[in-house]
Amino acid sequence: MRQSQLFTRTRKDAPKDEVAKNAQLLIRAGFIHKEMAGVYSFLPLGLRVLNKIANIIREEMNAIGGQEILMTALQEPEIWKKTGRWDDAVVDNWFKTELSEGTFLGLGHSHEEPLVRIMTQYVSSYKDFPKAVYQIQTKFRRELRAKSGILRGREFLMKDMYSFVRDQKELDEFHERAAKAYVKIFTRTGIGERTFRTFASGGSFSKFSDEFQMLCDAGEDTIYLHREKKVGVNREVYNDDVLSELGLKKGDLEEVKAIEIGNIFKLGTRFSEPLGLTFKDDTGNDQLVLMGCYGIGVGRVMGSIVEALGDEKGLVWPKEVAPFAVHLISITGGNADVEKEADRVYEMLQENDIEVLYDDRDVRAGEKFADGDLIGIPTRLIVSEKTVSAGGVELSQRSNGKGTLVSESDILERLQNDK
Amino acid sequence: MRQSQLFTRTRKDAPKDEVAKNAQLLIRAGFIHKEMAGVYSFLPLGLRVLNKIANIIREEMNAIGGQEILMTALQEPEIWKKTGRWDDAVVDNWFKTELSEGTFLGLGHSHEEPLVRIMTQYVSSYKDFPKAVYQIQTKFRRELRAKSGILRGREFLMKDMYSFVRDQKELDEFHERAAKAYVKIFTRTGIGERTFRTFASGGSFSKFSDEFQMLCDAGEDTIYLHREKKVGVNREVYNDDVLSELGLKKGDLEEVKAIEIGNIFKLGTRFSEPLGLTFKDDTGNDQLVLMGCYGIGVGRVMGSIVEALGDEKGLVWPKEVAPFAVHLISITGGNADVEKEADRVYEMLQENDIEVLYDDRDVRAGEKFADGDLIGIPTRLIVSEKTVSAGGVELSQRSNGKGTLVSESDILERLQNDK
Repeated sequence: MRQSQLFTRTRKDAPKDEVAKNAQLLIRAGFIHKEMAGVYSFLPLGLRVLNKIANIIREEMNAIGGQEILMTALQEPEIWKKTGRWDDAVVDNWFKTELSEGTFLGLGHSHEEPLVRIMTQYVSSYKDFPKAVYQIQTKFRRELRAKSGILRGREFLMKDMYSFVRDQKELDEFHERAAKAYVKIFTRTGIGERTFRTFASGGSFSKFSDEFQMLCDAGEDTIYLHREKKVGVNREVYNDDVLSELGLKKGDLEEVKAIEIGNIFKLGTRFSEPLGLTFKDDTGNDQLVLMGCYGIGVGRVMGSIVEALGDEKGLVWPKEVAPFAVHLISITGGNADVEKEADRVYEMLQENDIEVLYDDRDVRAGEKFADGDLIGIPTRLIVSEKTVSAGGVELSQRSNGKGTLVSESDILERLQNDK
Repeated sequence: MRQSQLFTRTRKDAPKDEVAKNAQLLIRAGFIHKEMAGVYSFLPLGLRVLNKIANIIREEMNAIGGQEILMTALQEPEIWKKTGRWDDAVVDNWFKTELSEGTFLGLGHSHEEPLVRIMTQYVSSYKDFPKAVYQIQTKFRRELRAKSGILRGREFLMKDMYSFVRDQKELDEFHERAAKAYVKIFTRTGIGERTFRTFASGGSFSKFSDEFQMLCDAGEDTIYLHREKKVGVNREVYNDDVLSELGLKKGDLEEVKAIEIGNIFKLGTRFSEPLGLTFKDDTGNDQLVLMGCYGIGVGRVMGSIVEALGDEKGLVWPKEVAPFAVHLISITGGNADVEKEADRVYEMLQENDIEVLYDDRDVRAGEKFADGDLIGIPTRLIVSEKTVSAGGVELSQRSNGKGTLVSESDILERLQNDK
């Protein structure tokens, strides 16, 4: 799209009360707007990134057999009372709202209860398994302190998948399939190398859960990392017994800060028992369904990418999640031939389905370059008097900045190869 | 996808308290799940339809220059107090929720206020116009009676676009562009022929608004329709003065029930004034921005399609919004050759990017046909002993049911031509 048409602009400053790096950069670059603490709207550039991350997650969930649905924010108390999770003393971050005098509804902070109720309508025989169901949907959590930008919001987009299986073996198998899918997701979103599967507390039904922790000084979690084995141990389960069970030695581990960008969890019968989700086994007896759950915060992944890769000049987007693949910048200096040439390159990229943001604005070159650095599109093409007279365009990468002259006929091939 | 893998199934009955035709059929066919009155989750087949409608709307909004964003449900009181819309006595369908002792947030039922606040950051000069911004986002409205299925929900997906312009002429121009885009949307979703642009009350800032009313006995609105002129008058503005202004005669009009599936509205300075959205004109003077708004309920369009086209056997989806283009049904009768042939057709369709639901279940033919009718996919292909021995498949349309034998090599061409 033409940048002159985009309604957002870069800003010199983020709001004064904004302390998180991710929010500061994203606000300055016009990707998000802060509505209040922990509540952010996504503007055109930001929504493009959010959707790309969501689509990567969607593709990998579909690839392991996930079926997508969309549940509701509004939650009626009944099913949550059955599992003991309606009480604010048990779950302290409910948003609740009054439907009519004295009748309250909750805003979903998680969706085990309503999904289990749905599944009781569709699951009855041992032949109905395994099943995996997920959604990419907005969660609400009444966080009292929300100061981490889009890393921890009061309202945020989350992918939550739930698996339904017959026995522990199937539960373990699906858990591993999901773990492999998560590795793919974080690799594709550009933070795979700094993300480590980490042993964490498993709650009441299994010894451990698996977290995916991205190394980052701004992270809220402390993990103990074995880099070679590519495995971490969350501080919450870091003790001699656990280390010995996992075959890890204290001396080999590194204490690091990290952001939890995904978790997978064996729920067992925690929800199927109180809500009566059963099936008839092959001998006709009723058995409780076993469940696992698999979460990723879509906005949190986006914020983590900013925390990890953003530099002093601004955002740096990996290719698969960038708002546009190419930032085309014209430096016309009032020369109509340069403008015509830039227009031509813009049309050629569009005709070849290359997503391009075209900075066709009538502003100084320095402002265009600074904005380009702040917005962080991975590949930049510059058309100027210099490049036109040399018969090409200047191509550079946001991540290293070194420019090379590329003849117009080679542009497409170079962009393909850089993918 | 293979229907044997789909976790939903058809049901004989909808919940007893469900009175709306759209919800009854959609629940029986496994498209939606009723969480409570006016609150529905979308299951895999239903979500596919919802997304297709949303994407048609998105494409047509992008085509008239709309820029997509995603605002939040959580709303802080401050900006709504400035426009006088926080008070429950003024807006009676707010859901509100307590953030901390005595501090309430609202759940957005509309988004003029937060978007105007965003625009104050980005709009300042007469050169910044016109702009159109939209989102496809979940609204919350505390409807006291919610008994129309997904036609009127307490939580529902809506497309709301807002235009920002400098003067009345630009406002009128964009209004007409939006009206044309709406006609395209309703044509593409298969209900264009029964949908009529209708004069309705314009509120305080313009004489009329435009509603798009789909004729339907289950509709809540009464309109007076001039079929030839393709124009309606909502009962709320139906009087002699208005008819004479519009050049319509009572005798030419037909009283009909209809569902409002879209509306476009000139807001003028209703929101820009209290929230201070101004721009410098070309003489350097501050001017108030003029606004229009353009809404479509995505779920309401889906429910309206069901109300209009559903028959005694079930759902009937127009091609562009159908969950799958083709319902492939195998009637093997235990014959492995038939199964092999059906598998082959399934693979061929998938390889050619034709969305297909493959009923590979081990159930009676009658059950497959009844389920097929209920689910309502437009084109059906049947593979049976009869069709295999005749060297082809049987092709029929959900809307008329007449089957013809098509040789396997002609299937793709026939499906293309039927588009």
